[in-house]
Amino acid sequence: MKNAESTAIDVAPDTNHSGPIAKKKSTTPLLAAAPVPVRSDRGTHRMKRGLAIFDIILRIGVLAAALAAAATMGTSEETLPFFTQFFQFEASYDDLPTFQFFVIAMGIVAGYVMLSIPFSIVCIVRPHAVGARLLLLILDAVAMTLNTAAAGSAAAVLNIAHAGNSSTNWLAICNQFGDFCQQASGAVVGAFAGVLLFLLLILFSALSLKNSH
Amino acid sequence: MKNAESTAIDVAPDTNHSGPIAKKKSTTPLLAAAPVPVRSDRGTHRMKRGLAIFDIILRIGVLAAALAAAATMGTSEETLPFFTQFFQFEASYDDLPTFQFFVIAMGIVAGYVMLSIPFSIVCIVRPHAVGARLLLLILDAVAMTLNTAAAGSAAAVLNIAHAGNSSTNWLAICNQFGDFCQQASGAVVGAFAGVLLFLLLILFSALSLKNSH
Repeated sequence: MKNAESTAIDVAPDTNHSGPIAKKKSTTPLLAAAPVPVRSDRGTHRMKRGLAIFDIILRIGVLAAALAAAATMGTSEETLPFFTQFFQFEASYDDLPTFQFFVIAMGIVAGYVMLSIPFSIVCIVRPHAVGARLLLLILDAVAMTLNTAAAGSAAAVLNIAHAGNSSTNWLAICNQFGDFCQQASGAVVGAFAGVLLFLLLILFSALSLKNSH
Repeated sequence: MKNAESTAIDVAPDTNHSGPIAKKKSTTPLLAAAPVPVRSDRGTHRMKRGLAIFDIILRIGVLAAALAAAATMGTSEETLPFFTQFFQFEASYDDLPTFQFFVIAMGIVAGYVMLSIPFSIVCIVRPHAVGARLLLLILDAVAMTLNTAAAGSAAAVLNIAHAGNSSTNWLAICNQFGDFCQQASGAVVGAFAGVLLFLLLILFSALSLKNSH
């Protein structure tokens, strides 16, 4: 109370003396209140732009992994160098429905990631675009589910192809079709790499959302 | 410039007249700035508490789905009513490594969801606890990956068990072990229901993070 009066009295003579100084004093509270949010705003702005740039790099990684996995699985076939009168022994990815699903699912994931890159660019240009960030997080989670299901199911079938199963009398076809199995295994590894990159994408999207206002 | 001077002159006589009025005038900008964030804060506070309550309901749903899937698969066995001198024909989930993985993975998911419920309660009590929310979102994404991989791989093996595969000479064992296959299929359906609930959990966590300050 005393303090308030003393400053008020302090202002009064200043106003009589000179206009510019009085103006400066009267606007001080407004200037003092503003800088704090602006400064922290600029800090998160820079951090979010960094996260957005990292986001687009991860997306390119997922795109490469998904395309490589789909292409590797899609071109996997092997013809054995011997044949009988009626059969030529060959294995191809479309002999197994699970591998067909794998190729289609990884193609869809690659297509989604390609379409999501423009949204990721929007997030670099406008780091505070919360809507685009939220949309990407949800769609990333859905695409990750598809990617994981494709990788997991192909891995399960490959496990049977490699090891066979004595209880069910399923023979290990990889004894004959070794190259085919190796190529398919490579595709599955690529798909699991895509899953890990998707997890990182979701992590960075969540961090970015956390710092939004 | 003119305006600033005139208000400065306006303040001066007030200070000379009475202290309280001058004090009120000088604090007005601070009071006018404060109420707006406080009011919107209360709105998001209520919305976030609603999301947190929905979160815990979804978690109980995931827990039920994961436990049911693990228990259904874990108890699936069938003994055929005929036998030869050397064999009694029986099928059990641990004949197939993929089904063993399914039971273990769904058990881990159920354990994680149970452990995550206290964190979810923290988010109801303190809707602005951003750290707990972020932690839950990331761990949910990891658990969803495990759940999806288990469901996808078991589904792939069940597809072979149901339909067989002529190219690889894998016979459809479900012709003999119908009940076993049906029980395992039920478990896979439960696991996929868990995946859907996980996707909803991630959606609501992201919505909750979006509105945090």
